[in-house]
Amino acid sequence: MAKLFNVAWIGTGVMGGAMAGHLVAAGHRVCVHTRTKARAQRVLDHGAGWADSPAAAAEGTDVAFAMVGTPEEVEAVHRGPSGILSAKNPPRIVVDMSTSSPELAVLIDLEARARGGRGCDAPVTGGDIGARQATLSIMVGADEDSFAEILPLLSVMGKTVVRHGGPGQGQRAKLVNQVLIASTMVGMCEGLALASAAGLDAQRLLESVSTGAAGSWALANLAPRVLRGDLEPGFMVEHFVKDLGLALDLARRLNLDLPGLARAQTLYTQLIRDGHGRRGTQALTLAYAPRATEHRFV
Amino acid sequence: MAKLFNVAWIGTGVMGGAMAGHLVAAGHRVCVHTRTKARAQRVLDHGAGWADSPAAAAEGTDVAFAMVGTPEEVEAVHRGPSGILSAKNPPRIVVDMSTSSPELAVLIDLEARARGGRGCDAPVTGGDIGARQATLSIMVGADEDSFAEILPLLSVMGKTVVRHGGPGQGQRAKLVNQVLIASTMVGMCEGLALASAAGLDAQRLLESVSTGAAGSWALANLAPRVLRGDLEPGFMVEHFVKDLGLALDLARRLNLDLPGLARAQTLYTQLIRDGHGRRGTQALTLAYAPRATEHRFV
Repeated sequence: MAKLFNVAWIGTGVMGGAMAGHLVAAGHRVCVHTRTKARAQRVLDHGAGWADSPAAAAEGTDVAFAMVGTPEEVEAVHRGPSGILSAKNPPRIVVDMSTSSPELAVLIDLEARARGGRGCDAPVTGGDIGARQATLSIMVGADEDSFAEILPLLSVMGKTVVRHGGPGQGQRAKLVNQVLIASTMVGMCEGLALASAAGLDAQRLLESVSTGAAGSWALANLAPRVLRGDLEPGFMVEHFVKDLGLALDLARRLNLDLPGLARAQTLYTQLIRDGHGRRGTQALTLAYAPRATEHRFV
Repeated sequence: MAKLFNVAWIGTGVMGGAMAGHLVAAGHRVCVHTRTKARAQRVLDHGAGWADSPAAAAEGTDVAFAMVGTPEEVEAVHRGPSGILSAKNPPRIVVDMSTSSPELAVLIDLEARARGGRGCDAPVTGGDIGARQATLSIMVGADEDSFAEILPLLSVMGKTVVRHGGPGQGQRAKLVNQVLIASTMVGMCEGLALASAAGLDAQRLLESVSTGAAGSWALANLAPRVLRGDLEPGFMVEHFVKDLGLALDLARRLNLDLPGLARAQTLYTQLIRDGHGRRGTQALTLAYAPRATEHRFV
C-alpha cells in the first residue's frame, strides 16, 4: 500500500477542486482552504477537512499544495500574514501548481528552506478536463529528493509528470508551453480569417489541412468551436494574457527577442480591452473578423 | 476497369517525378517534359514518354498536369511560346498542381476555355514523402464537371482530395494552409529558443508539452530535427517565402491585416538574406539562436 500523506490544499476552483478530490479518493488526509468556502463544498462532501486560512490548513502537514489564479495570489497564500509559510509547524514541502513567476517559485523555496522545508513548483496543462480525468501534464521544478517524495501525489492527478530542474524550472517549462500555444493561436485565427474572406468553406478547409503539416491541437479542438460560434472558455483570455506577460518577462531577463510572442500578447491584451477577457482563447478570432461574428458573440 | 487517359506531365522534380510515376503505374499513357531531362530519367524508365516542350507533351492529350516551382514557371509552361496552351490540339483539361497565384489560375482557366478546354488548380501538401507514398492532401479549384473527370487521376496521387470551389480556390486553400504553418513555426522556434535560454532540457520539455494544447505536427516532426541540428529541407525556406508572399498578396487584396503572417514573412526573408534559403523551414530556429547553433549548421 502506498504511503498516505497529511496534505493541505489551497484553492478549490474548477481545476483545484478536481485535483484535491483525486488526493482524497486516493486515501490521503486532505485539509482545504479557498477564498469562497462554497466553492470547496464538493471536495468537503468527498471527505476533505476545512480550515479558515492557508496557514491553518498547512499546520503540521507533510505537503501543502496551492492552485490559485495569479502570482499575487500565489504570493499571498504562501507569504502573506496567514499564508502557508506562517504556520507554526510549516509543511515539509510546499508545492505551487498555479502558473506563476519562476522567480517567485525560487523565493518561496528559499523561505521554505529557512523554516526547514522545501519549495516546489508544479504547474499543469490539460485544462478542466485533464484535471477531472487526472490526465494532466505536470511540469515540476524541485530538488531530486522533494520530487521523489511528491511524485506519488502528483501521479494521482496527472498522466505525464516530468521534473525540469530545480525550483522555478517547472514554471519556465510551463511558460514555454504558453509561448508555443500563443503563435499557433495567431496562425489559426489568421488562417480562418483568410479562408472566410477568400470565400472558402472552412469545414472543407479543415478536412484538407488538419492532418498535414498545418495540423495542431488548436486546429483540431478550437477551430471547430470558432466555426460554430462557441467562444466559451476552455482557458480564459485574461489568464492567458497573465501567462504571456510572465513569458515576456522571462524572455526579457534572458535578453531574448520573441516578436511572435510580443505580437500575440498585444492582440490578446486588446481583446481584454474590448471586453472579451472572460471568453476562451479561441476568441482571438474576434481580432480578425469582429463584424462578421458580432451578431453571434456579442 | 477505370478509364485510361492520355496525360501530359510537366515538371519531374522530387515531388512531380513521384506523382507522374503513380499515373504511369496506374496504367495511364504519360508523356513528360521537364527543364533538365536527366531529372525525368526515373519516370522515363518506368514507361513514360518524353517530349521536348510543354506544348509537345500536351499535344492532343486529355489532361495536362504541371508541377513546377514558381508562379513565373507556371506562367511559362502554360502561357509561354511553347507552353501547354500553345499546342495545336490543346488538352481538354489543364491542371496546375504547383503552389501558385490564385489570379493566375483564373487566367489560365479563361485562356484554356478560349481554346475549348478548362483550367483547374490542384496544389498539394504532404511533401516528398506524401508524393512518394501517394498520401498527399490535394486542394482543388475546378468546375464540378472537370473535378469529376480528373478525380480518378488525382486519387492515384493523394489520399485526401477536396474541391474548394472554382478555379483559384484550390490555391487559396493552399495559401491558408501556409498561413497556419507560418505562425506555428514562429511559436515552435520561439518556444525552443526560450527553453534553451532558460536552461531547460528540450527533450524533456517536448515530453511535457507535445501531446497537450501546445501540440502540433511541427512540434512532433520538426522540433526533433532542430534539436539534433538537422536543418535539411523537408520543405525549403525559399519556397515557403514564395508561398507566404502569395498569401500576403491575397490578404492585401481582401483588405485583411495579418500581423502574424507579416512577421513570419519578415523573419523567413531575413533567413534567405543570411544564406539559409535552401535549408528546411525549421531553419527559422537560426533567427533566434544563431550563435548557439552556428558551429553545427554553418
